[in-house]
Amino acid sequence: MSDLRSKFLEVYSVLKSELLNDPAFEFTDVSRQWVDRMLDYNVPGGKLNRGLSVIDSLKLLKDGRELTDDEIFHASAVGWCIEWLQAYFLVLDDIMDGSHTRRGQPCWFRLPKIGMIAVNDGILLRNHIPRILKKHFRGKPYYVDLLDLFNEVEFQTAHGQLIDLITTHEGEKDLSKYSLALHRRIVQYKTAYYSFYLPVACALLMAGEDLESHVGVKNILIEMGTYFQVQDDYLDCFGDPKVIGKVGTDIQDFKCSWVVVKALELSNEEQKKLLHENYGKDDQICIEKVKELYKVLDIQGVFLEYESSSYQKLTKSIESHSSKAVQAVLKSFLAKIYKRQK
Amino acid sequence: MSDLRSKFLEVYSVLKSELLNDPAFEFTDVSRQWVDRMLDYNVPGGKLNRGLSVIDSLKLLKDGRELTDDEIFHASAVGWCIEWLQAYFLVLDDIMDGSHTRRGQPCWFRLPKIGMIAVNDGILLRNHIPRILKKHFRGKPYYVDLLDLFNEVEFQTAHGQLIDLITTHEGEKDLSKYSLALHRRIVQYKTAYYSFYLPVACALLMAGEDLESHVGVKNILIEMGTYFQVQDDYLDCFGDPKVIGKVGTDIQDFKCSWVVVKALELSNEEQKKLLHENYGKDDQICIEKVKELYKVLDIQGVFLEYESSSYQKLTKSIESHSSKAVQAVLKSFLAKIYKRQK
Repeated sequence: MSDLRSKFLEVYSVLKSELLNDPAFEFTDVSRQWVDRMLDYNVPGGKLNRGLSVIDSLKLLKDGRELTDDEIFHASAVGWCIEWLQAYFLVLDDIMDGSHTRRGQPCWFRLPKIGMIAVNDGILLRNHIPRILKKHFRGKPYYVDLLDLFNEVEFQTAHGQLIDLITTHEGEKDLSKYSLALHRRIVQYKTAYYSFYLPVACALLMAGEDLESHVGVKNILIEMGTYFQVQDDYLDCFGDPKVIGKVGTDIQDFKCSWVVVKALELSNEEQKKLLHENYGKDDQICIEKVKELYKVLDIQGVFLEYESSSYQKLTKSIESHSSKAVQAVLKSFLAKIYKRQK
Repeated sequence: MSDLRSKFLEVYSVLKSELLNDPAFEFTDVSRQWVDRMLDYNVPGGKLNRGLSVIDSLKLLKDGRELTDDEIFHASAVGWCIEWLQAYFLVLDDIMDGSHTRRGQPCWFRLPKIGMIAVNDGILLRNHIPRILKKHFRGKPYYVDLLDLFNEVEFQTAHGQLIDLITTHEGEKDLSKYSLALHRRIVQYKTAYYSFYLPVACALLMAGEDLESHVGVKNILIEMGTYFQVQDDYLDCFGDPKVIGKVGTDIQDFKCSWVVVKALELSNEEQKKLLHENYGKDDQICIEKVKELYKVLDIQGVFLEYESSSYQKLTKSIESHSSKAVQAVLKSFLAKIYKRQK
């Protein structure tokens, strides 16, 4: 695994070097250095799960046989495209949210002399993806499907971000707009498509499959992505800060978290009133009142219930799939996230 | 011509309606209204020259015969993709530049309740292009070339914007960074590719041509785009505000304009000192000093010289092209811009 990771990181260096010498643009020294630094700061610093999972998935789709060096390189290149996509979203999201830190360092746009140029840097990140795909996949039979796939998933993610921005960030804080249905829609479009469906869809295309005959796989992965985000929301409130590496702030940040929409659903009028009065305030007393209500409503118990029923449903759906290789891919994803503590 | 324009605008309504009902996303009423309003505000309000020129060019490539309704629709759809691309750049450029007005109305991000959500709106505009192309061109033999073309031109434009941002917007105002070579590079990548090459390249693909055998056409159009931007820079300083519809502000805005780089080139040490001291200051006395120097250096005469020599060179290049139909396309572009006053 750490061998795979180091191979994966080697491919990053290759791709970066190709982009910095792309004949479609005449770089100046200053612009080449700018993009070089921007890439190193924003692309490879995450957990790389999305990118690495393309390689894992392709291997499982090939019935577990070892991949050739060429297959590993191509799966890595596509995996990096997903990491590039993520970097593009994060750079721009941080600007829109006015965030301060990301992955344990200041947000890119917060650095001296960057500022709003970061908007263009986000665009550059986005533009690198089709350049990588063109250079390495132009002759492959699935090239056009790969382009369509990235375009569709980006479209979905941007629209997920739109509903998140206009219903949860915009205007007066109004908890009555929050519901499980809204939460689900935001999560599916903003996170699940690109984090769960996209890596597997890429691997399927590379294995010679067509995506139209795998709508079932898509639905399972979207469900899994939803479950993953519910865990994220749960851990923000109930996880161990020492384990998850940060102190959750969803309550004071007025986030449309699964925890609060579930609490709203289970609350009587009086409890709803308490939530309306205390949710989204950066005040320790308000935060404690909300947490106390979560305890009264046994949100932790409700979550454990949700977790095990999700797991059972997902397992059942996976096992009803006709291909053992596809089952293995989906089970490997599920195993990675089930009962995770961080 | 006004008939063509109204047909073109009808296609906008069709495309917008398709995008607002795209099955890849489950719109809420609020998100659909948001995108609807955002499109109407940002996409169709320009001169539409780039979009309309796809239709004109295709007609000329078909030896001037009337296009079928289907050909007009498809050329219009591609033309609108270029208008969408332009809208995407403008929405984000205005944020990066901190601009206030655009096309005679407040910049989109300046409107109440928009703000930084405009970054995501820019992304949505960009994402609409491959959706339009997929819906209407997926089965065409040139579909993948069309995708590659839009990707490459966007990549070039974003890199042109990068060198503009880091060499002319960033840090201390330092006129010594400005040169004709830098001006040329910014203009070619930031403007010429998408405004001049892209419409013709789209028409060539639709006419069944492949772009690799038309590198000469690309070079001519990039030269024409450069000439167009030099005119723009000239008119900002010397044009009639009543005719061009705005009062130029390139001098106080410290723009890397052809006028100032030409003046720098022609200046002696004393005149350079005057430019360094007065260029980029929002002070009527400084502006007048710069304009006075432009008069002394006869920048107007130098421009007229540049204009006629550009015209001659372009005409010569065009007439050496082997295809009369392609010549007609290039001549029509040149005729539209030669000696323009606005």
